[in-house]
Amino acid sequence: MTYSFSKKISALKPSAIREILKAASIPGMIAFAAGNPAPETFPVEEIKEITAQILAENPVASLQYGVTEGYQPLIDTVKEWIKTRYNVGTDSDAVVITSGAQQVMDLATKVLCDEGDLILCENPSFIGSLNCFRSYNAKLIGIPIEADGINIEALENALKTHTNIRFLYIIPNFQNPTGATMSLEKRRRVYALAQKHDILILEDNPYGDLRVAGADIPAIKTMDTDGRVIYAGSFSKILAPGLRLGFFCAPGEIAAKMVVGKQTSDVHTPMLLQMLVHNWLMKYDPAAHIAKVQAVYRRKLNLMCDQLDEKLAGFFDYVRPEGGLFVWGSLPKEVDMLEYVKACTEKKLAVVPGIAFLTDTADTTNCIRLNFSTPSDEQILRGVEIMREVARL
Amino acid sequence: MTYSFSKKISALKPSAIREILKAASIPGMIAFAAGNPAPETFPVEEIKEITAQILAENPVASLQYGVTEGYQPLIDTVKEWIKTRYNVGTDSDAVVITSGAQQVMDLATKVLCDEGDLILCENPSFIGSLNCFRSYNAKLIGIPIEADGINIEALENALKTHTNIRFLYIIPNFQNPTGATMSLEKRRRVYALAQKHDILILEDNPYGDLRVAGADIPAIKTMDTDGRVIYAGSFSKILAPGLRLGFFCAPGEIAAKMVVGKQTSDVHTPMLLQMLVHNWLMKYDPAAHIAKVQAVYRRKLNLMCDQLDEKLAGFFDYVRPEGGLFVWGSLPKEVDMLEYVKACTEKKLAVVPGIAFLTDTADTTNCIRLNFSTPSDEQILRGVEIMREVARL
Repeated sequence: MTYSFSKKISALKPSAIREILKAASIPGMIAFAAGNPAPETFPVEEIKEITAQILAENPVASLQYGVTEGYQPLIDTVKEWIKTRYNVGTDSDAVVITSGAQQVMDLATKVLCDEGDLILCENPSFIGSLNCFRSYNAKLIGIPIEADGINIEALENALKTHTNIRFLYIIPNFQNPTGATMSLEKRRRVYALAQKHDILILEDNPYGDLRVAGADIPAIKTMDTDGRVIYAGSFSKILAPGLRLGFFCAPGEIAAKMVVGKQTSDVHTPMLLQMLVHNWLMKYDPAAHIAKVQAVYRRKLNLMCDQLDEKLAGFFDYVRPEGGLFVWGSLPKEVDMLEYVKACTEKKLAVVPGIAFLTDTADTTNCIRLNFSTPSDEQILRGVEIMREVARL
Repeated sequence: MTYSFSKKISALKPSAIREILKAASIPGMIAFAAGNPAPETFPVEEIKEITAQILAENPVASLQYGVTEGYQPLIDTVKEWIKTRYNVGTDSDAVVITSGAQQVMDLATKVLCDEGDLILCENPSFIGSLNCFRSYNAKLIGIPIEADGINIEALENALKTHTNIRFLYIIPNFQNPTGATMSLEKRRRVYALAQKHDILILEDNPYGDLRVAGADIPAIKTMDTDGRVIYAGSFSKILAPGLRLGFFCAPGEIAAKMVVGKQTSDVHTPMLLQMLVHNWLMKYDPAAHIAKVQAVYRRKLNLMCDQLDEKLAGFFDYVRPEGGLFVWGSLPKEVDMLEYVKACTEKKLAVVPGIAFLTDTADTTNCIRLNFSTPSDEQILRGVEIMREVARL
């Protein structure tokens, strides 16, 4: 038979990154594409111990249905963790456990957006979130992002121009794909503008703990006196992404609606994995582990950037990020970006063409995104060398 | 600030069952509500062994990101499992791993339905699916269900009356909540009607393996010469529900769109759990385990029904199901069903009022749903005794 699909899904293409991730699994391919955390940071021994203990002491709870909001001891622990570590969350906020932070984007869009509603996004931004918004037929308004975060004038202009804006989506720390971190001053101005124009903010902070230089900057959620910020967090980058364990901290009324949405999406997040994360937070030293993860990423980020500075100066124009997983830069105007990416792939180096991250899919860019957490040190050296060879420097 | 929500989520209330599940956790409450599988059927020792082995031998793959379609060895094993055991799946079908079968409903609705599109459902039907359809602002058309499945004349009439029907949602085996199993003749007529009116079928089969009497009846998917059936399966009832591990088998073109939807929902289903189910299917004897599960459910189903026959004859009118998790019956006309349910709760017995399962939320019924898998044998005896006391028989 002939199939017809919903309007919202018809326009949506498979994520270029997921497709490249598949290409990256071709033997011998060096993966500067994708954004897999460095596997050497996974606390395998701890996970082994915890899992064995849960299945020995509490098997039924770990295998039975649970409530949609999440495993209560984990909710309580996350609540305390984000309050103590980041000063995030108030008495009128609720914490809910999700199947990865991606689900936070999905649920927020579901409960807040009717088809055709507007979402403001940094441009470029994380393709997984952009595609999620598109999958509800929300319309994206891209706001340029600079080295110190979103362009405030463009944001203000968009807020003045459009009426049916539902929320602003931002990744203030080590943004994906640009690596940019928003300054404290800009965070304050963003919140003030959200107040003035009475819109919500969806603050996505998957990389906040991956700082390798400079000082932490408070989350916009810490300024949330009105209850207008939905804060999304994740254990993917500090523990392990395959667990698909994320959470959100949001005003109770919004959280309740998102829980209703989650009931119909996947009922609840797997109990064994919720208990695993809870025990890890309680029994081990997550802060010490994060410091170890930062040390790995500091070395890898600096290795890649030092190589780029040495071998591609004047060709690859970028700002060294203070953390996260990605380096974003532009090629010279006279270089055809897609041809360059293709030539790299032929030499067994996968990078992501910047167009994947644009809010307007018809737009163009000469930028590419590199990832330093997935490749080994040797692969970083070889990958940058391939970039140089293809650039004919 | 004051919040406004999307039209699709505004009308949706939290699932009555999830709320009752919370009430059921009150100490001393006997849970004839909810639908938790019997915890004594969880193969805890096997899960312990497998999990330890995966984390010892293959930790990185079990903790790293995976592709959206699922862990390929599990996809291959599920494909063979459903082909061998149920004759489900053709060369033009694809199998995709999902975060519980609930996610199949979510993805199917997302890719197939625009707001206002119609979905035909058995009436009553599973509230989790009905609420999922509602959460996309699809309109439900309820078709009465009888002891041998959906009413064919009503189905035909609905197909003739309405034009923008996207699919028919059915649970042919041990339907939730009625326990009804559709006859082979009706399955053939349903497929023929779907062909005649060119609609898709979403066949939900979470309980198919829980048969305790009678002979298996082929799935509608086995008749799917046109590629018009999306078949949803689950490991929740034969392995453990807390793992949130389901799958679908659907025509490739539909599956590809559902994968795009899943990318933006939760990226992929947790790797450790996918590997766990794969190893369980490969290294143990799932058919033998299912036979053991059936023995437990046979005893519990018959215990409850024998008690109902003995203590509530003439008051609780029901048909003994051949499997599944639920017994569905009606109270005498002169009894106020909601008052009866309330009085049971006060005596510490939780049952689900039948109105939770109606496609039209303004409709009424004098039916209630009982579950026999969650309570212990002693609780089944005591619970039916409470039902008798409240009925004043």
